[in-house]
Formats: sequence, C-alpha cells, structure tokens
Amino acid sequence: MSKLFMFEKPLGMRDTLPELYETKKQARNKMMEEIEAWGYQSIQTPTLEYFETVGAVSAISNQQLFKLLDQEGHTLVLRPDMTAPIARVAASRMKGEGYPLRLSYDANVFRAQQHEGGRPAEFEQIGVELIGDPTSSADAEVIALMVAVLKKSGLKNFSVAIGHVGFVNALFVDILGNEERANVLRRFLYEKNYVGYREHVKSLPLSSIDKQQLLNLLQLRGNHKIIAEAREMTGNSGARKAIEELDLLWSQLECYGVTDFLKIDLNIVSHMSYYTGMLFEGYAENLGFLLCNGGRYDQLLEKFNRSTAATGFGIRLDRLVQALGETASSTPISLIIFSQERRQEAIEIAREKRENGERVVLQDLAGIEDVDLFTSRFQNVAYCIGKPGKESSL
Amino acid sequence: MSKLFMFEKPLGMRDTLPELYETKKQARNKMMEEIEAWGYQSIQTPTLEYFETVGAVSAISNQQLFKLLDQEGHTLVLRPDMTAPIARVAASRMKGEGYPLRLSYDANVFRAQQHEGGRPAEFEQIGVELIGDPTSSADAEVIALMVAVLKKSGLKNFSVAIGHVGFVNALFVDILGNEERANVLRRFLYEKNYVGYREHVKSLPLSSIDKQQLLNLLQLRGNHKIIAEAREMTGNSGARKAIEELDLLWSQLECYGVTDFLKIDLNIVSHMSYYTGMLFEGYAENLGFLLCNGGRYDQLLEKFNRSTAATGFGIRLDRLVQALGETASSTPISLIIFSQERRQEAIEIAREKRENGERVVLQDLAGIEDVDLFTSRFQNVAYCIGKPGKESSL
Repeated sequence: MSKLFMFEKPLGMRDTLPELYETKKQARNKMMEEIEAWGYQSIQTPTLEYFETVGAVSAISNQQLFKLLDQEGHTLVLRPDMTAPIARVAASRMKGEGYPLRLSYDANVFRAQQHEGGRPAEFEQIGVELIGDPTSSADAEVIALMVAVLKKSGLKNFSVAIGHVGFVNALFVDILGNEERANVLRRFLYEKNYVGYREHVKSLPLSSIDKQQLLNLLQLRGNHKIIAEAREMTGNSGARKAIEELDLLWSQLECYGVTDFLKIDLNIVSHMSYYTGMLFEGYAENLGFLLCNGGRYDQLLEKFNRSTAATGFGIRLDRLVQALGETASSTPISLIIFSQERRQEAIEIAREKRENGERVVLQDLAGIEDVDLFTSRFQNVAYCIGKPGKESSL
Repeated sequence: MSKLFMFEKPLGMRDTLPELYETKKQARNKMMEEIEAWGYQSIQTPTLEYFETVGAVSAISNQQLFKLLDQEGHTLVLRPDMTAPIARVAASRMKGEGYPLRLSYDANVFRAQQHEGGRPAEFEQIGVELIGDPTSSADAEVIALMVAVLKKSGLKNFSVAIGHVGFVNALFVDILGNEERANVLRRFLYEKNYVGYREHVKSLPLSSIDKQQLLNLLQLRGNHKIIAEAREMTGNSGARKAIEELDLLWSQLECYGVTDFLKIDLNIVSHMSYYTGMLFEGYAENLGFLLCNGGRYDQLLEKFNRSTAATGFGIRLDRLVQALGETASSTPISLIIFSQERRQEAIEIAREKRENGERVVLQDLAGIEDVDLFTSRFQNVAYCIGKPGKESSL
C-alpha cells in the first residue's frame, strides 16, 4: 500500500473550482425551474442507504457500489441512483398523498471505479419520477419534460432515442427460446457492439430466416417510420404490443411539439434491470457519453410493498455542462483595499454596493502578501488608503 | 443482526420531504446570495476523502467518522467537515491565485451516531473560509458576514459569543502547569458542564488564589465589559495578548454595526483542535443546539505544505430552518385534468401558464386512481374533458 501525498483524492473523486461551480449552478437552476413549472416537487434522501433495501433493488452492479458496515453489522451503500430511494419514500412516508405523485431531485450519486479511466465516481444527477400513473400520457410527459429541461439549460444539439424493452424481449424469446441466450445478445446491444452482435448471430444454430430477423433488428433505428417497419417485421404479439405502445407514445409527443428531438431505437436495452416498458437515452452532439436516460418501471414500487406504475428520467449534470461547452460568467467582483484609518468608510461603501446587488471584496491592505498578484484577479480595484475622504475611482 | 424492513434507513439518516425541501432551499438561496455579495466564491469537494489526509486533520473524533476501504487498502472517510477539504484545495489547485482567498461552500457533512438520539448523521453546512490573511480584519469580516447571513436568512433572535483559545490556554498552563490537567478542565468547558468544572477545581491541589482565578473564569461571559474584567484578572502575557486581540476585533466589529448580536465568552473551547486564535459560537433563541461556529486556524494549511493563516465559519442549515420555525410557502401548483380528445388543448394551456411563471400539473384523467384524493392536493383545478372548447374556469 503506497503512502499518500496530502493532496491526493480517492479514485474518481473530483473538486469543482469556482468557474465550473458557477457553470453548474446556472444550468442546475434553469433546469430545476423548468421541472418546478411542470408541478414536480423536490425531495432529498440520505447519501447512505441499507444495502439490503435500496442497495439491493437499485440494479447497479455490486462492484460499482461503495459499501461500508454499520455498528450493527448491516451493510450500507452510498446511493448509486435516486430512483430506488424515491420509490422508498413514495411508498412509505408519501403513500397517503394520492397518486400520481410528481417528485424531482438534484442529488449526487456514487459509482465505484475499478481504475482511473477519467470517469467520476461521484456525480450530480437531476431528474424526476412520475409515480402511480400507468398511462402512456405519463411517459409522454416525462420525455417532453426532459426535452424542455435540456432546452432550458441552453443545450441545442441533442437527440433522445426511444425504445421499448418489450420489443427486444419478445423477439429474443420468440427466436432464441430461452433467457440465457437472450441475455448474451442483450449484452452486445447494451454495449452497442453491433459487430459482435452480428458475428454472434451468424454463429447461432438457427434457421436463416430467424438469423435474418435478428440481424434486421439492427436496422430498427431512425425516425418515426421505424415503427411501421418494426410492425411489418414480426407477428409476435408481445413485440406488436410494444410497437403499438410506442406508436401511441409518439403521437402524444407530437402534441408537445418535441418530435424534432426524438428518434426511435429498438436496440436500446438498459443496464437498469428494472425497466418494464418504453425506455429512452439522450445524447448531445460531440459528447461521447450517455447524457440522460429514463423509462417506465412498473415493478420497482412493489418491492416497497406498494404495487404501482412509475416512469421517470435522470440527467447527468457533469456531462450536460461538458456538452454546453461554455463556462458561465458570474457577476464580476470588485475590490476595495483599505487601510486602518479608512476602515469605516470602506465598510460603508461596500455595504451600499452589496445592497445594490454588486459583489464586493473588502480587503485590509495589511492582510495582502503580494498586492500585484492579489489585485490581478479583479477588474475593478479601488483604494481607501491614507487620508480619509470620499473614494471616487469606483 | 436483525432483518430490516424495506423502508428502514441507516441510523441518523433523514429524508427531506417537499415542504422542508422548499424551506431549506429558500433559506439556502438567501444565505448564498449574501456570501456571494461579499465576494466569496463557491467550490465543491468530493464526499469521500482519504482518512490519511483530510480525515486525519479534520479533528472530528474517530468514532464519528464513517469509514470504508478502497480496493488498494486505503481507508476512505465521508467528509466530516468542509474546512480540511477546502484547505486541501486552497493549498494545491488554487495556490497560485494570490492570497487572501475567499472561498465558500454549501455541502453535506457526515458524523456517525452511536445510537438513535435524534441527531442527524448527515447534515448540510453553509460556510466560508478566508485563507491567507493573518489580520484581525479577516476575523472581523467573517463574524460580520456570518451575522449578515443569519439576518438575511430571516433569523431575528440570535447571538454570537466570541472567545479566544489563547486566553484559556495561557491561564490553564500558568495555573495548572501541564497540558494533561488543562485538558480535563477544557473538557468541562467544552461540555458546558460548569457545575462539574467547579467541583473539579475545588478538588485540585492548588492555592486558594489559583482556585479562585479558575472559578472566576466562569464569570467571563457577557458583554464588552468582560474584556476589561479579563484584563484585570491576569498578568499572564499570553492571556493578555489574547485579550488585546479580542479588544481590537470588537472595535472592528463596531465598524460593521453588528455588536448588538455579539457577546464575549472566554469559556468557549472547541472540539475542533485546529483553532489557534479567536473562535465563536452562534445560538438562536429557543434552539438548544449550536447553530453555527467558526474561528481562526493558522496551522491547518501547513499540513498541506502551504503555511498560511486562515479564518472561517460554518452554519448548520438543518438547525437554522428549525430556528426559523416557519415553513416557507412555495408557488402554488394548479392542476389541469384532461381527457384524450382535449390533450392538445390542455398542453397548450399548460405551456402558456408555465411560460408565465406558473406551476402547472397536467394530468390525464385515465391515470388517476382516486380523483377526489388526488385533486384535494391542489387549490386550483381545471378540467379539459369531453367535447373540445376553450376551458374558462382556470
């Protein structure tokens, strides 16, 4: 075990310095404002949860969990997502509220990294959960809201691809016969390894018609016409049902006027095993990572003894500000340097300016090590030094 | 080890429901606005730090630390305070900025609880650190800013007691001769167990003059005249130096016009072993807990290889909103219930209202389980149901 330098931080842990802090803050505030306008109410849940409860249902792989033991021997986890904790609250302290419940959050979540690969082990997520509404209208609302939130943040070039777990599942079970084989193919789709998928399909002991159908699945990514193509492709009732749900969802999204940002992608599968219906992924141009995602999860709440439907999304704030590309400019800070004999005057000037909404640093000359270096950080510097009198250079 | 119910949370962990969330948010925003007006810049640091670095210098007792192991065998801690992490950043990534640095934060910190005694194990702290300024002006600024922040939050009845570690330390070493004995007495003061302090002093093998001086220390709590009394009480040069520093500090605080909120309390000692000069504690009327505290810590930065002076404060947001007593009212949310045939119209109405700053929930009638229970949450309910036409009841 190597000795640490005093400045070192644990793997994947980051500091956020003032410029990035301001950028995040401005994006966060705009996003939360939009979420509030749609009537969602924010809640907070603890950073630590029991592994046996929230940890076990969160569907993040075990090796990505930060775990610790409490004094009673229970394993605790740093929350890996917010969906499971919010389901816990919705099913317990808020269960008397009358569903549907519209809840939102802005919280840090944790995913342990196995090696330093540039991925953060702690990141901020902003999202909503619409709990207790089984209709397609609820799905349309969360997608339309996610588009509105991304637009409000200032993001311009992004797209959201919508799929349905029911389509892939039905097709795979129909053709492959069992879940084990289906999981192998699902893994290729999850990793978006389409070359590997093709190779694997070719190696399977299937009829050439079945193989072709599995290969054709890869074509089912594009605009709204994909829905018609998928409908043609299979007579399987489960797959057809998924397609009709997607078609209805699309027509409702047209009412919101957001379909310019949308695609259909029937190859989407999720690492979140709790999705039960439509699901979606959002990408920004020039960003090589998933920006946001979500979907319908109608079986999670029953793990908290309250069987009900739910749908929602989460957006990663770190990746959003990366996609925005620009750092936000904050209100400039002006500087007043004073000496002892004009302290009172300097305090009055600063107070007045602060009351007018200005940001003012008030600094005793005697407390500065290197005046040139210190003042170089400020565009606007005034001196209240020496013989008292009204300072006019500010 | 007992089996857990799905709803259980780890010891001392709390959920924040919408009403409290809104109350906290409004207080937090006002407080951060004031801190920004004084030219402080916010930063964030990770939730997890190495025990060997930040954990070891944070001065929170070992049993209050949440600890876990990383894969390399290093112990990680959930940050127990923000002063040590900010010192790490100020001494490393921000060391080229030219001191003094004015940094602020709004962050959750963690203190493991040994039993359920109503104390939270995770709480939000808002604070500032003024790094690299050894003058009394820096101390006056942080105290004046803390008063301004508390006032800005809406708090009316509060007071801040200011002490100095140098006074108690010099007096104790002078009379008791060694640190071990001094620590016993310090412990009574830290616990504010003045009865225990008196009993212990009486049991000590000291002259009656020395005993009386130790007992007189308990009288040194009150308004500004305490400074003169303390000056009379001892000829010890260290204690005198501390008193002169406090006197200078008080005169500077008079320039800020905040002394109505201030007291002198020479009995203040801190569990934070890193304080080196003046220190202070803030209390709100009707709140039995410490609301905020701070002080000068001139030896912490050198642990990060950057020897420099520093001073700062932290305010507990959970206790502040408790002291405020009232829950904040948020913008009311109105409800539009629609049926399929009037979806488009309902979406347009909601969009318009949201753009005008209103909060609107748009709900498909088909998604509501119990209409009476659901609508009872909203003061303002409009229906876009049945035959299309302009809805006028909103």
